[in-house]
Amino acid sequence: MTPLKNDRLLRALLREPVDVTPVWMMRQAGRYLPEYRATREKAGDFMTLCRTPELACEVTIQPLERFDLDAAILFSDILTVPDAMGLGLYFEEGEGPRFRHPVRDQAAVEALPIPDPEEELRYVMDAVRTIRRELDGRVPLIGFSGSPWTLATYMVEGGSAKNFAIAKGMMFDRPELMHALLAKLAEAVTAYLNAQIAAGAQAVMIFDTWGGVLTPDDFKNFSLAYMERIVSGLTKESEGRRVPVILFTKGGGQWLEAMADSGADALGLDWTIDIGEARRRVGDRVALQGNLDPCVLYASPEAIRRSVAKVLESYGSGSGHVFNLGHGIHPTIDPDHAKAMIDAVHELSRPYHQ
Amino acid sequence: MTPLKNDRLLRALLREPVDVTPVWMMRQAGRYLPEYRATREKAGDFMTLCRTPELACEVTIQPLERFDLDAAILFSDILTVPDAMGLGLYFEEGEGPRFRHPVRDQAAVEALPIPDPEEELRYVMDAVRTIRRELDGRVPLIGFSGSPWTLATYMVEGGSAKNFAIAKGMMFDRPELMHALLAKLAEAVTAYLNAQIAAGAQAVMIFDTWGGVLTPDDFKNFSLAYMERIVSGLTKESEGRRVPVILFTKGGGQWLEAMADSGADALGLDWTIDIGEARRRVGDRVALQGNLDPCVLYASPEAIRRSVAKVLESYGSGSGHVFNLGHGIHPTIDPDHAKAMIDAVHELSRPYHQ
Repeated sequence: MTPLKNDRLLRALLREPVDVTPVWMMRQAGRYLPEYRATREKAGDFMTLCRTPELACEVTIQPLERFDLDAAILFSDILTVPDAMGLGLYFEEGEGPRFRHPVRDQAAVEALPIPDPEEELRYVMDAVRTIRRELDGRVPLIGFSGSPWTLATYMVEGGSAKNFAIAKGMMFDRPELMHALLAKLAEAVTAYLNAQIAAGAQAVMIFDTWGGVLTPDDFKNFSLAYMERIVSGLTKESEGRRVPVILFTKGGGQWLEAMADSGADALGLDWTIDIGEARRRVGDRVALQGNLDPCVLYASPEAIRRSVAKVLESYGSGSGHVFNLGHGIHPTIDPDHAKAMIDAVHELSRPYHQ
Repeated sequence: MTPLKNDRLLRALLREPVDVTPVWMMRQAGRYLPEYRATREKAGDFMTLCRTPELACEVTIQPLERFDLDAAILFSDILTVPDAMGLGLYFEEGEGPRFRHPVRDQAAVEALPIPDPEEELRYVMDAVRTIRRELDGRVPLIGFSGSPWTLATYMVEGGSAKNFAIAKGMMFDRPELMHALLAKLAEAVTAYLNAQIAAGAQAVMIFDTWGGVLTPDDFKNFSLAYMERIVSGLTKESEGRRVPVILFTKGGGQWLEAMADSGADALGLDWTIDIGEARRRVGDRVALQGNLDPCVLYASPEAIRRSVAKVLESYGSGSGHVFNLGHGIHPTIDPDHAKAMIDAVHELSRPYHQ
């Protein structure tokens, strides 16, 4: 493999010195980009885009052609694992993801196979390999998965949920069944992420999109415990470098201390926490990734620049910060506004690294 | 007025001794009750139900006939104030609230009148008077309003928002305009709540439903500051008793210390914070209201009882706790499950008050 030309991301995730703060955006390969919409159109539907390595590679690289980003992130969906377990993922227009076969009883949980990542999920690994070849060392590639709890909510509900009535109902009424499901998912996700690392992912991120809808105790028992299990089972090094692990629980600002003890190298933050305050709370245990309010990108470039400056100032001097939005970029954002943010991060962060 | 037969709520909100922990539920007059659905049907549409004092009174009292609740809460909508400002509130089936005339520029903000609560909002005050008469001292009546920030999001967006793109766009790009709108709303809400108190409300609650979508700084400047302004302008005493004020910011668990310094008597908590931890953080500055995960009510009565016990244990001994859900009761909850929660609170809390 070509050596990395820009390793700011990997260095910052391990709290090693950098020249400027690295920056990337959750959903940077997404609908706000006209070139993404064109490829998506060409693919026909969303899952074909995910399942065709050349097209997944194309959209992964697109934002790097426009912006001075410090990382690429694999284009895929968090629901590939449950799909590979045989749940039959499909997308209904305007309805979000759905599963043909929700998992609601013991028999269904027991019947779930652990997918072989190089078989049922080979299209993801092929995408990773294709993207790495195409990136040619330009920036590191981040692999990812949904967290067990987050995947379980979709699997039990049969799709997106408003109140998580069914998933939480199972958690409260049959905790042992929910634990059995989560244990299987932790095993499947560990294998999935390790396969991504073997295929070329240089950092991995676990998206715990729905951990924040739990009470603190339920979060620890039903979400964090399984993310910890995954972290401890991940390949620590690849191509002679450590592979950093990022945990991101949306709405998880209240549990940062517990998350910082998970063994992960970095925590993603949404925008409802002050990043300086978060840094004081986690100390030097982990790096932090975030956390501009994604709605700031609706404002003028001047307002965006001011908001970037504020996040950088709040984090303060030294490494350990990867700039990002606090959530995925919204589909109606003007790409020039994303550029204003990215350029401001590099320009305004230099003094903090001297 | 008849003296209060059950004043647990008022005592607990002021951290005075009680025999058992008082309990009520956000949206206790709501769609989960068949008798509510019958009255709603009779009214024809939601706003007619709000605007007809006899019907609003009927649904306010309904849950008290079924359950051993320690408070009634005025049946109304948080958007009555913007409606009275001339924005033209209407409800589209499955679409939520909408305004015919969103407020998006300086002229629109300047043109907003401050409604006279006994004129444009007289139907609310009549409902308060009718309910008080009907309650006849059984339990106290809670009045309420939306917070200025929460009302502003609907007024600027023209209805419910997914990402608050327009409201936040105004906040980031034209902060002075957003402040002008919020200042007007604070004035209108103060007058509205004071009129509710004059009409008979014995405690008031400010619902800051959307404060939690802000960064900590934006929350303080654009939401909390205006709630503080309201709190300081409220009538402190009525009918010879202090009128306690409750602030509830959904997703506000990270800012409890700041909220505890607002002058409010109590803070509402959603379920993403441990109430014992919250109590340690706010000390003896405020009482706490909450905070069972509303999805617990989907589980079995036994599981509900265990979860109630956990919240009570976490809060611990002494007064200053009003039991509630961490959010409004979901429309598909079995009323018997609500009863299981309410009865468990009274039964299991006694030892904590000896």
